[in-house]
Amino acid sequence: MKEIRVKTAQSEYGVIIGFGALKRLESLLLGLHADCVVFVADTNTISIARQVYNDITGIKLKKIIEIPAGEVNKTPETAVKLCSAFAASGLTRGSVAVAVGGGVIGDTVGFAAAIYLRGIRFVQVPTTIIAATDSSVGGKTGVDLPEGKNLIGAFRQPEAVFADTCLLDTLPGREITSGLGEVLKYYLLGAFEEKCLDVFPLSRDSLKSVDFEELIARCVEFKARLVCEDEFDNGVRRYLNLGHTFGHALEKHCEYTRYNHGEAVAIGIKIAVRLGIKLGITDAEVLYELDSVAWKMGLQTDTELKISELFRNITTDKKRLGDNSNIILLKRLRAPTVVTLTDSELREAVSEL
Amino acid sequence: MKEIRVKTAQSEYGVIIGFGALKRLESLLLGLHADCVVFVADTNTISIARQVYNDITGIKLKKIIEIPAGEVNKTPETAVKLCSAFAASGLTRGSVAVAVGGGVIGDTVGFAAAIYLRGIRFVQVPTTIIAATDSSVGGKTGVDLPEGKNLIGAFRQPEAVFADTCLLDTLPGREITSGLGEVLKYYLLGAFEEKCLDVFPLSRDSLKSVDFEELIARCVEFKARLVCEDEFDNGVRRYLNLGHTFGHALEKHCEYTRYNHGEAVAIGIKIAVRLGIKLGITDAEVLYELDSVAWKMGLQTDTELKISELFRNITTDKKRLGDNSNIILLKRLRAPTVVTLTDSELREAVSEL
Repeated sequence: MKEIRVKTAQSEYGVIIGFGALKRLESLLLGLHADCVVFVADTNTISIARQVYNDITGIKLKKIIEIPAGEVNKTPETAVKLCSAFAASGLTRGSVAVAVGGGVIGDTVGFAAAIYLRGIRFVQVPTTIIAATDSSVGGKTGVDLPEGKNLIGAFRQPEAVFADTCLLDTLPGREITSGLGEVLKYYLLGAFEEKCLDVFPLSRDSLKSVDFEELIARCVEFKARLVCEDEFDNGVRRYLNLGHTFGHALEKHCEYTRYNHGEAVAIGIKIAVRLGIKLGITDAEVLYELDSVAWKMGLQTDTELKISELFRNITTDKKRLGDNSNIILLKRLRAPTVVTLTDSELREAVSEL
Repeated sequence: MKEIRVKTAQSEYGVIIGFGALKRLESLLLGLHADCVVFVADTNTISIARQVYNDITGIKLKKIIEIPAGEVNKTPETAVKLCSAFAASGLTRGSVAVAVGGGVIGDTVGFAAAIYLRGIRFVQVPTTIIAATDSSVGGKTGVDLPEGKNLIGAFRQPEAVFADTCLLDTLPGREITSGLGEVLKYYLLGAFEEKCLDVFPLSRDSLKSVDFEELIARCVEFKARLVCEDEFDNGVRRYLNLGHTFGHALEKHCEYTRYNHGEAVAIGIKIAVRLGIKLGITDAEVLYELDSVAWKMGLQTDTELKISELFRNITTDKKRLGDNSNIILLKRLRAPTVVTLTDSELREAVSEL
């Protein structure tokens, strides 16, 4: 079991990682003196949430709420309905929400908690690799608009994160592999040494192993450092967007059905690396490294979609300023950089990929 | 012209009050180096917004958006539509929204600005007395749910507030009188001396007078002090909720059509004073003072609705904790206090009013 501390100007909290991490949830909740604890899950994770709910016996007032699953439901409408359900359940400023699920649940519940009564406390229980390594940590919450992904949201840090590796055991194979899209990003950014990759290819057994706990911990530790330095995403935290400008555009282009987030990020990283090489910014060695690690992880990094078709969706990404896009590229392995491209520069560059 | 500074842990900004205050808007906007400035108004204030828009000639990229008027439209749906309009207008993290209107516009635009791209900058241009004296200052933004008023929102401070008293000139009579509901509150809390009340009864001329500028400035100064000490509404800022638990319940009971906010607050204050006297907390003298000042202002403080009928709506108010309501009462003039009552205590007390 490992605990990583995340510190920001306004808060500090722990990310507990390992097999059985959830055993520590009850004592945290008791320490928060919540007048009511509400567990929120989706269709895929409601059975896990019920188990967690039942295991927690020392809390007097508990509720459980199910919301629809999938990125297509990560909308303002779902978040508002959830707030209405909070109100109907009598949640007050002294209540605590517990998000049990993957990135969609974490983002949606975190956002609802950020806006209900102008903010109530919440706890993240990530059940997927993406949520455990990335989205549950750092306080970025949000939902999608028809105009683009995560265009509505709030910065709000959780009270704690419990990444119990035993939950990963229940994931379908595609969810495990695609979840590694974010892990690939962390490797290229320099979050961990190559020896951590010895855990791949993953098997059901290695999910429970200490090595995988180590891998999540290294990603979280890396993210925690950037969040601490730049909570509101104006500086070094932006490195974590590696592959995301193109990944989000791909997800949106396919209406959030064809690729899930991790798959889109893996493809987005490859686009960013090829773009960087074309612009003379990225060392060609990085492409070799990327392909080799992605192959180990079983990740697809190619798409038959034409990259130029994604352009319209790239230009509505929120990491823009005026007619410029801030794209994260790698100079070398472990050496990210922010490159500002005008729309016409970007259009020209991607059209030739 | 007066300027009051509002300081919080994360920000500091000016509230410019007086005839012609808006003349200073352009230089502020230029100083913000916005890549785009969007003016948002409702049906009632769109002509003012157009004027402001036209007067500002030094900003390259300007947009104007109209949203529907009235508390019935202060909903998450309106805020989300506004965010979609922001995205369609190409607003980025470097853009600035300017809210031109009363409390409903200020709350809705402020909330949309708080959640669009996880927060963009905004400026308040209050056009009503309520907005100028109270809601435009302090960073409480929010929208209503069917379950209750302001149940969704965010704390987010504006970049500046421009309370131009020349705008009050265009207000219909009912809007002026009812706007004094919040001014009545500030008087009872001790924001200004009795001599400031010499401005009453108001005439069209006195709206432009220095005295009225003074009255707004005193309310804002008082609020700024409480916000500085307690931005997130856990301590002394709660005093500003005097009359609001009952006022909100009244507004909701009448589905936001019969009473506007100021009228409901004035009635709510009278209920709070009568409740305080009944509980032996409030000096009976306060009731006399309240009646006399309300009469001067031309404010109705009575309702033929039975207060006990409001009870169900009181208990969904967000200033609650579990089965308790925190009610603001006055011990004496200028001496507010927070009283915690259980549902049964509150029900019993109000049933006998």
